[in-house]
Amino acid sequence: MIASSDFQGWARVNQARVETALQKLLPAAHLAPARLHEAMRYAVLGGGKRVRPLLAYAAGELTGGGGERVSAAAAAVELIHAYSLVHDDLPCMDDDVLRRGKPTVHVQYDEATALLVGDSLQSLAFHALAQMPPASEAPGAERIGDRARQLEMVELLAQASGSRGMAGGQAIDLASVGKTLELPELEFMHIHKTGALIRAAVLLGAYCGENLNRAECDTLDHFAKNIGLAFQVVDDVLDAEASTATLGKTAGKDAQHNKPTYVSILGVTRAKHLAEELHSNAQQALRPFGAKALRLKQLADFVVQREF
Amino acid sequence: MIASSDFQGWARVNQARVETALQKLLPAAHLAPARLHEAMRYAVLGGGKRVRPLLAYAAGELTGGGGERVSAAAAAVELIHAYSLVHDDLPCMDDDVLRRGKPTVHVQYDEATALLVGDSLQSLAFHALAQMPPASEAPGAERIGDRARQLEMVELLAQASGSRGMAGGQAIDLASVGKTLELPELEFMHIHKTGALIRAAVLLGAYCGENLNRAECDTLDHFAKNIGLAFQVVDDVLDAEASTATLGKTAGKDAQHNKPTYVSILGVTRAKHLAEELHSNAQQALRPFGAKALRLKQLADFVVQREF
Repeated sequence: MIASSDFQGWARVNQARVETALQKLLPAAHLAPARLHEAMRYAVLGGGKRVRPLLAYAAGELTGGGGERVSAAAAAVELIHAYSLVHDDLPCMDDDVLRRGKPTVHVQYDEATALLVGDSLQSLAFHALAQMPPASEAPGAERIGDRARQLEMVELLAQASGSRGMAGGQAIDLASVGKTLELPELEFMHIHKTGALIRAAVLLGAYCGENLNRAECDTLDHFAKNIGLAFQVVDDVLDAEASTATLGKTAGKDAQHNKPTYVSILGVTRAKHLAEELHSNAQQALRPFGAKALRLKQLADFVVQREF
Repeated sequence: MIASSDFQGWARVNQARVETALQKLLPAAHLAPARLHEAMRYAVLGGGKRVRPLLAYAAGELTGGGGERVSAAAAAVELIHAYSLVHDDLPCMDDDVLRRGKPTVHVQYDEATALLVGDSLQSLAFHALAQMPPASEAPGAERIGDRARQLEMVELLAQASGSRGMAGGQAIDLASVGKTLELPELEFMHIHKTGALIRAAVLLGAYCGENLNRAECDTLDHFAKNIGLAFQVVDDVLDAEASTATLGKTAGKDAQHNKPTYVSILGVTRAKHLAEELHSNAQQALRPFGAKALRLKQLADFVVQREF
């Protein structure tokens, strides 16, 4: 349940963990080039719900992956997410001035700096995965095995971020402005635009612990896909219904930009039903994992019931 | 010697090898989102001197690293280079309309697409490193060792690309427009802006073969730093002296943009002397490697003697 103080406590602890990891990964603001580093820290630190990192931590708990490895994975995904927000807000894209309750990076600094902030955050995400500490203190094969697993994580994050993932979804989004999309087309867009990175968050977190078998991987993937889409449907509903102050970003932008959304295609009521259906699919996918999936289950509730 | 037909043949063969690797890595132009994929291919294929890939191949020959691994490394570095050109040409950066003799990506397509092209090419570079085939067919530890080495390559490329490398150099470059820089400041900028990726090209290529000892690594690094700076000094001389038609990009832009360059600080004659000095340092660094360094030696000649 979202209201569970137990879950809220868990979320706070892990939000603080990823904040610490991000603090350490981001170059200090006084290091040259100082303006770029200051802007990178501005873009990443002290804001956001950290949904993707929380998904990574929760999936790490599912497979018994704790410690600094999962923090590195969580930070890597959040860095990709943060870079995408900085670039999406640029004038040539969504041209937005408000993000997480603050001026967007190109408003606070300038466009060229915002471009380089996004570029540098993407590099830093791969750095985060590459410099992850080994899971075991044991020397030899096991430790090298950790390295091979990290390489799979690099591959997964690269795919999820690139033209067949998040960036590709953004391209489809741009091309769809002013067009009438059918539901399957909208779904195709969001599976790329937001779904790919949410899926990566879950799988990267899971990769930090014991290996899952093929069937378990598929099940977890099914969970991730459903929760990724649910996240987007709820986002569209919130964009249509909530205020700018609540969201910390400009509300009502989708309609204003004539962008197809779940709300524009289905209306608010049916969009809410769809979110519930996806939520229910996600919860069902977790059943085989039993109690180990507690945090993923609570996160699925949070994603659907959130109000910002 | 640059005029050596032997070297020219070697360069042509390896330019074709990296072109094939890039062709395979880049998603087909008909795959969705087709416009983005078409633009990515436009940005990368069929152009450029491929100096960085050639450095990777040459360093691979130094350590006996052949085959597809070095092609993946060469392609990864070229993808980072190509992404940086697409973003640097954007209106909020250098605002250039001509690159490799063709309209720049944002002119041929649009700004948003150019932004996403750069973002996607960066992801693809890390994908290229992560999906590199193993060096040996042998199963077990050796093969896993290859994976650990690849992870070091990811780390190296992430560092070279990010805010402490290429993107950071670009930020320093932007901040220096209209300012009077001293030579050490200019050098600091270029060590980041172009030097970091050229160094990465050499080291990634070398990592595809037998391990070098610490002293050999340092020596190779010294070569790479000198040739990276020489490359930039020659670039500045060419920008001042050559025509747009020869360069395939807008000539005389540095002076026009009031950018500090080796020519603006030293004048053409002293800049040419500096290039020769760096060239000589680079050649000396290669001596301990003997005949194995032939291609690196020839590339150093090419970098300094090129006319475009």
